[in-house]
Amino acid sequence: MYTYTMNLKEYTYNIFIGENYFNEILDRILQTHPYNKIMVITDQTVSELYLNAFSIHPDTFIETFVVSDGEKSKSIETASQIYEKLAEGNFTRKDLILALGGGVVGDLAGFVASTYLRGIDYIQVPTSLLAQVDSSVGGKVAINIPQGKNLVGSFYQPKAVYIDVAFLKTLPIREIKSGLGEIIKYAMLVDEGLVEKLTNLSLETLYSHLQEIVLKCVEIKGRYVVEDEKESFLRMHLNLGHTIGHAVESYENYEVSHGECVLIGMYYMAKLSENQTVMITLDRLLNAFEINNIYNYNWSDLIPYMKRDKKNSGYDINLVMFKNVGETEIVKIPFEVFEASIRRY
Amino acid sequence: MYTYTMNLKEYTYNIFIGENYFNEILDRILQTHPYNKIMVITDQTVSELYLNAFSIHPDTFIETFVVSDGEKSKSIETASQIYEKLAEGNFTRKDLILALGGGVVGDLAGFVASTYLRGIDYIQVPTSLLAQVDSSVGGKVAINIPQGKNLVGSFYQPKAVYIDVAFLKTLPIREIKSGLGEIIKYAMLVDEGLVEKLTNLSLETLYSHLQEIVLKCVEIKGRYVVEDEKESFLRMHLNLGHTIGHAVESYENYEVSHGECVLIGMYYMAKLSENQTVMITLDRLLNAFEINNIYNYNWSDLIPYMKRDKKNSGYDINLVMFKNVGETEIVKIPFEVFEASIRRY
Repeated sequence: MYTYTMNLKEYTYNIFIGENYFNEILDRILQTHPYNKIMVITDQTVSELYLNAFSIHPDTFIETFVVSDGEKSKSIETASQIYEKLAEGNFTRKDLILALGGGVVGDLAGFVASTYLRGIDYIQVPTSLLAQVDSSVGGKVAINIPQGKNLVGSFYQPKAVYIDVAFLKTLPIREIKSGLGEIIKYAMLVDEGLVEKLTNLSLETLYSHLQEIVLKCVEIKGRYVVEDEKESFLRMHLNLGHTIGHAVESYENYEVSHGECVLIGMYYMAKLSENQTVMITLDRLLNAFEINNIYNYNWSDLIPYMKRDKKNSGYDINLVMFKNVGETEIVKIPFEVFEASIRRY
Repeated sequence: MYTYTMNLKEYTYNIFIGENYFNEILDRILQTHPYNKIMVITDQTVSELYLNAFSIHPDTFIETFVVSDGEKSKSIETASQIYEKLAEGNFTRKDLILALGGGVVGDLAGFVASTYLRGIDYIQVPTSLLAQVDSSVGGKVAINIPQGKNLVGSFYQPKAVYIDVAFLKTLPIREIKSGLGEIIKYAMLVDEGLVEKLTNLSLETLYSHLQEIVLKCVEIKGRYVVEDEKESFLRMHLNLGHTIGHAVESYENYEVSHGECVLIGMYYMAKLSENQTVMITLDRLLNAFEINNIYNYNWSDLIPYMKRDKKNSGYDINLVMFKNVGETEIVKIPFEVFEASIRRY
């Protein structure tokens, strides 16, 4: 069991990482914060597997809200339904929202928590690898609108995050690969031993190293968040691969996993770097985990989606460029210059 | 022209109070912050009277979004429409939302600004007396859901507030009286010369004293906000009259003005105080501005609405009680005790 403490300027909370302790999480939460009521937000698949461990407690009234699986639930409509259920259940600022699920559930539940009554407590229990290493860490919460992903949201930190790698045993391989997308991003972004560790693993041997890998990713992301909670500059490095990745996601109507889209974006950024070490290292990491088929897209399809990305401030675009493995820089260039460059690949 | 500086812990901004300078506001904003794009959010009535002064500028692209008059526009549906217009117009974190209107427009536009792209800048130009002395000050923004008023929102400070009392010349008397509701609340809450000043005025003589009165109210509210931005305790005093007031508002389907509802709530709190000075002072203030007909309500109708108020944490209720004119205290009592007390009046 590991604990990472997120030491923000005005606020501190813990991220716990362990294996097979999910049955104790509700007890642990209530020992630290004796909430009167908890609204557990989860999705169909997770609810069938794990909701039992989170739906009954002798000291606390627990309601549950089960959303449909998938990105479509990160909508204003679903958020509205949860607001109404919270209000009808007389949830107050003393109560808790618990997000039990992957990135969709975490982002949606966190956004609802950030805005219901101008903010009530929430705790993340991420059940997907992607959520454990990325979306549950750092307080970025959001929902989608028809014009794009995460266009409506908040910076809003949880009271705690409880990560149990045992959840990952029931994940389909596609979801593991999606999480690996962000893990490989951290490796390419700062390295710090992650490249070597990962290239020596495979999909078969991964599980027994997950606690340390998740901890390492949480530590890396945590550092960026502590330095730049509201993403004014430094935190932008975490968007490595995301400019193109988000465009692919929108273009594919969210049917390609987020992690894979990040890999696709990073793959083109690696090409753009024209640095052989970057290309070779990324290829080795992709091979280790049998991630093939980095699809080819038609730039004319993706460009309009990129233009709408919220990170593309004003007429310029902030681009996370590879200098080398473990070394990136943020380059602010006119979107048209970037467009001309990538069209060559 | 007065300037009040809101000195928050992490952030400072100015509230400007003047007369008949609204034609210069756009210039002043752009001199301080050279925004690329501005989305002006306003309502039907205000747009007909004043939008001209805010819709064209040689240096900046300005779009406008006109909502229907009235509380119904403070909805998730209207917020969604604005999000979509912002996204379609490629508004980024470098752009501005300008709220030109009363409390409905300010709350709605501020909430959209707090959540679009996880927060973009907004500036308030309040055009109603209520918004000038209350809702535009302090960063509480929100929308309504069917279950109640302001149940979804944020604490989100504007970049600046530009108050022009000239807007008030075109306000119907009902709206002036609504603003007076909150002004009288400040007088009853802290006094500081406001009681005497106000009792010597009338609806006819009010206008020529408005700049100083608005400044005084902004200063009073500002002090509470600076001490307790997120309303953990001290700021609750500003809710004087609001527990019952909000219930009346919901019960009346928002057809009775907010300020009048606050007066109704304060009136019952004055009765409950059983303090003659409080009762007499409030009566004199109401008489000075010809505010009669403090309606009688059936408690059985109002109680369910009070129970749902977001300030009523857990099973207890935080009540702002009069000790005397200019002196209040927050009393935490079980809702049932409060219910039994007010049922006697």
